[in-house]
Amino acid sequence: MPTQPSRPDAGVRPPLSPDEHLTSHTTRAVLRIQNRVLAVVRDFLTDRGFTELLLPVIGPVTDPGIRGSKQVDVDFYGHRYKLMTSAILYKQTSLLAFDKIFCIAPNVRLEPLETAVTHRHLVEFHQIDVEIRDGRREDAMLLAEQLVSHTAAVVRELRAELEILERDPDAFRDVVAGVFDRVTHRDATTDLNELGHPQDPAAEIDWQGEEVLSAKASRPFFVVDYPKGSRGFYDREDPERPGVLRNFDLIAPEGYGELASGSEREHDYAAIVTRMRETGENPAKYGWYLDLARRGIPASAGFGLGLERFTRYLTGRAAVWQAAAYPKLPGVVSP
Amino acid sequence: MPTQPSRPDAGVRPPLSPDEHLTSHTTRAVLRIQNRVLAVVRDFLTDRGFTELLLPVIGPVTDPGIRGSKQVDVDFYGHRYKLMTSAILYKQTSLLAFDKIFCIAPNVRLEPLETAVTHRHLVEFHQIDVEIRDGRREDAMLLAEQLVSHTAAVVRELRAELEILERDPDAFRDVVAGVFDRVTHRDATTDLNELGHPQDPAAEIDWQGEEVLSAKASRPFFVVDYPKGSRGFYDREDPERPGVLRNFDLIAPEGYGELASGSEREHDYAAIVTRMRETGENPAKYGWYLDLARRGIPASAGFGLGLERFTRYLTGRAAVWQAAAYPKLPGVVSP
Repeated sequence: MPTQPSRPDAGVRPPLSPDEHLTSHTTRAVLRIQNRVLAVVRDFLTDRGFTELLLPVIGPVTDPGIRGSKQVDVDFYGHRYKLMTSAILYKQTSLLAFDKIFCIAPNVRLEPLETAVTHRHLVEFHQIDVEIRDGRREDAMLLAEQLVSHTAAVVRELRAELEILERDPDAFRDVVAGVFDRVTHRDATTDLNELGHPQDPAAEIDWQGEEVLSAKASRPFFVVDYPKGSRGFYDREDPERPGVLRNFDLIAPEGYGELASGSEREHDYAAIVTRMRETGENPAKYGWYLDLARRGIPASAGFGLGLERFTRYLTGRAAVWQAAAYPKLPGVVSP
Repeated sequence: MPTQPSRPDAGVRPPLSPDEHLTSHTTRAVLRIQNRVLAVVRDFLTDRGFTELLLPVIGPVTDPGIRGSKQVDVDFYGHRYKLMTSAILYKQTSLLAFDKIFCIAPNVRLEPLETAVTHRHLVEFHQIDVEIRDGRREDAMLLAEQLVSHTAAVVRELRAELEILERDPDAFRDVVAGVFDRVTHRDATTDLNELGHPQDPAAEIDWQGEEVLSAKASRPFFVVDYPKGSRGFYDREDPERPGVLRNFDLIAPEGYGELASGSEREHDYAAIVTRMRETGENPAKYGWYLDLARRGIPASAGFGLGLERFTRYLTGRAAVWQAAAYPKLPGVVSP
């Protein structure tokens, strides 16, 4: 069996030219696996009663909770619109039409230039976005766990592709077995500080911290209960533990870092407006969304799973750009 | 059996508010059918050896052949990028990776304000984009015909949804039987002029003309051999009939108008540059694409099928906005 490097980004090269990239055997194998992942995910969710929707890529407002990256402006007949950074606002309101929905859509985030070398940031990426009407955080976590476990079980059998990629199918043994560990943000913070990686207990865990935790793990695990102030206004505050959010991240093992983020959602109009103000957002910007929230949107929980990051993990690639046909790195002009 | 209105846009109303739209029984039925169309199309193409790819939504350049609509600029770290108006450039170059590819992707075109009332223009829409390496125009037409016919056969059986929508399943009888008629652009021009709809023999047929032809038909039909000058640089000129393009449109019956456009492609570097100049495009803008063309991209043929227009036709809706969860009409501020 091929062995894995101790760090997934050991020996990574910068992106190839587009034709070298598209004609390489490894790119083809990665894209074939990604293609299979998309089919498996769609079947898995459809079998469980989810309806796939096509949601907008431009709109008057988008997800502000994007960790230091910038939104992209577009001019819509004289109105300042944004490219979607995530589908969160539409996911909540789409539950007016169907009780369980998903979408697989492009997101664009102008990440800081220095992230061009992290091996884990793309300006343009896709999320598998899932939302469950009347769902609790635990429903979303269970579904994410089952989805990742089931997909890994299918990918483990793609032996021809895994061999080309020198990805050991045994890497998925614990993943396929299911039951991912859970650690609170507080405990993860303690772990990181003990490991010599300074982590503020009031802040989001940065990607380096996620990688440190990820490198210690042999199967995916959840980090839960992020502190208020570290995440977007739509992650619901626990009514019984003020200051703690009913949310989660799902972290891959082997140093591949974050795969998914999710939460129970704020859906009450007054609570949303309060949380917007607390997170520094101007409610006046959120016209259509707050209009619907005022008239009533469903309680829900859901998550967004990064397709290229998931593909990178499954295929054992050194860098996330290897999981896209036409990768866009921060600041780098390319197709 | 419910009867169809003589014109599909008879009695159309303007878009509802987002929550009225999402909670209406007809919207839900339309979106359920669209969901099924997406699944059927993916299965149909995958079974025939096509690989689905995720292609960029922003890039340095995009399809210029978009009939009077405008491209949307975005700022990519100081570089002027565009939102994709179609996937054409990426479709051709993606054949370096796989022999048969498809993508289902969002496109954004700023249509003129006056098209807000045509019932057939959306600023944001999706195309089912297909490309076949070494394909001829006839291969692309046959595939489009089979895809539309097969999808209509599946939709015809969705009786519960069709009943809600008062769409007569018998409307698809001729479609399911297959074999769509073909008419040349020259003959279509003659027909239109005889029907009192002035049509320039050197120009693209406008949407009103397409609707006139469509209203006469009981099953989809192809218009072929558009004159050079009426279409983008990538539609291949017939080497044996200079001035005639090896391209086609697929028009729906019953007045629903255009469903798809396709062609054999220009792929030779010198021919592409010549055609760019002839169509008023500056080759210097097309850096990455021409770099790849110079080093060699495959001969191909393909088409793009408008998902919302196809859904509108299948579901018998008065307006194309009824086939989107969050429709964007030209100039109208909405989610």
